[in-house]
Amino acid sequence: MDWRARLLRMEGLAPLLGDDGGLVWGTLADAAPDAELVFLGLKDGKGCFAAVPAEGDNAPAYAIRDVWNMLGALSPGDLATYGGARSLVDWHARHRFCAKCGQPTVLAKGGWQRNCRSCGAQHFPRTDPVTIMLVEHADKLLLGRGLGWPEGRYSALAGFVEPGESIEEAVAREVLEETGVVAGSVQYIASQPWPFPSQLMLGCHAMASGEELTIDTTELADARWFTRAEVEHAMAGGADPAFLPPPQTAIAHFLLNWWIAR
Amino acid sequence: MDWRARLLRMEGLAPLLGDDGGLVWGTLADAAPDAELVFLGLKDGKGCFAAVPAEGDNAPAYAIRDVWNMLGALSPGDLATYGGARSLVDWHARHRFCAKCGQPTVLAKGGWQRNCRSCGAQHFPRTDPVTIMLVEHADKLLLGRGLGWPEGRYSALAGFVEPGESIEEAVAREVLEETGVVAGSVQYIASQPWPFPSQLMLGCHAMASGEELTIDTTELADARWFTRAEVEHAMAGGADPAFLPPPQTAIAHFLLNWWIAR
Ligand SMILES: [Zn+2]
Ligand SMILES: [Zn+2]
Repeated sequence: MDWRARLLRMEGLAPLLGDDGGLVWGTLADAAPDAELVFLGLKDGKGCFAAVPAEGDNAPAYAIRDVWNMLGALSPGDLATYGGARSLVDWHARHRFCAKCGQPTVLAKGGWQRNCRSCGAQHFPRTDPVTIMLVEHADKLLLGRGLGWPEGRYSALAGFVEPGESIEEAVAREVLEETGVVAGSVQYIASQPWPFPSQLMLGCHAMASGEELTIDTTELADARWFTRAEVEHAMAGGADPAFLPPPQTAIAHFLLNWWIAR
Repeated sequence: MDWRARLLRMEGLAPLLGDDGGLVWGTLADAAPDAELVFLGLKDGKGCFAAVPAEGDNAPAYAIRDVWNMLGALSPGDLATYGGARSLVDWHARHRFCAKCGQPTVLAKGGWQRNCRSCGAQHFPRTDPVTIMLVEHADKLLLGRGLGWPEGRYSALAGFVEPGESIEEAVAREVLEETGVVAGSVQYIASQPWPFPSQLMLGCHAMASGEELTIDTTELADARWFTRAEVEHAMAGGADPAFLPPPQTAIAHFLLNWWIAR
């Protein structure tokens, strides 16, 4: 065992936090003897690892209230480390078998790959591109509420990019499907990894051709147009806001501030 | 059988082409009796389907020379239809088993999902985000040659976005790993789906802080800086070009023309 190696301490997929609220690093002896280890990279000359838990997690992020609160308290560096580690070990926990032939697979290349000894197939961790977009019309923004979200919360519409689509096509399709609004002039603003389970959020802005809404209630609890004054008041933390804004760790928060400042 | 339904005719993963060079549509009777069918969407009021072949394909696009030529001949509409269909049926062919428990899965939701009846896991077609970037310094562009590429071809550097990375971080990491060049000021330009097997190409531009190259020869056959005059001459199809440009169907072609026109 390499005494210079460090293990990111987790309980299942949740991070252990120290007294200072930061991530806790142990040694490889802290991992179960038969645990698969994923190499996270070098830090201060020491190899950093995380252990693959017995079970992964398919729950959407909004279902993990505690995690939201915890994420908001982590430093940006710890957040990036934990997010990358969580995505990887969760993927391994949910991909112990070969999708091509059904036989067991083994971790390879430090955890950036799994190999099937039976059919030879190689499997790689996945990252799913998701568009998330501010839709604008007449200086108002279209925001939506997902099913099961906290009371009063509204945020940017979002959806997975499907095979065969560009970012710009995915934005237009999602907005039309979820709200009936025709959107165009899609502009990319910023991107952010999101580790629940492993998404690449593609933050965009689009212009709508009208404001009439036909909401797909299987996807959204609600969607509404908010005026610039309402958005500014809510983002400033004002009293009786028209909506509860998304948490600071979410790219939607960044996008809303970008729109206000523009 | 619905007489209004149409089947995209393919041989394995390759499209059948008609006398006019376009895609060929048959009826569902043209599919093998036990074939899984993927719903592609409605066209002229008719449901369009493609059949999952016996085998998928993991070969990289550059290994499929015939496909490159064929793609260049398809109309943009046919190219989008075939690309989306190929990605989907190829994914199904390579995901007949549950990665979580190893048992067989069944196609669901018209082919946009596979379900495991054994453990209940749901599996979705994947789309892998890939950054592809023009790296600039002193009005020159850094282009690379992949291993096994046609003689003389150079194109934009590219690489998969890894879990935990933003687009901007992935661009900087890939350029550094492959060429030793430090790049920043990453700007998103355009995106394009690429169905070999199912990628979302994220076209970017970045500025380099210097021109010294340390090439990772396990990833690249070569990388070189080309002057604006060399890029313009090559893209214009001039005699004795400094490099063979990427094919017109590739987003790298679009990015190079964008850079010339800027
Ligand atoms: Zn296998
Ligand atoms: Zn299963």
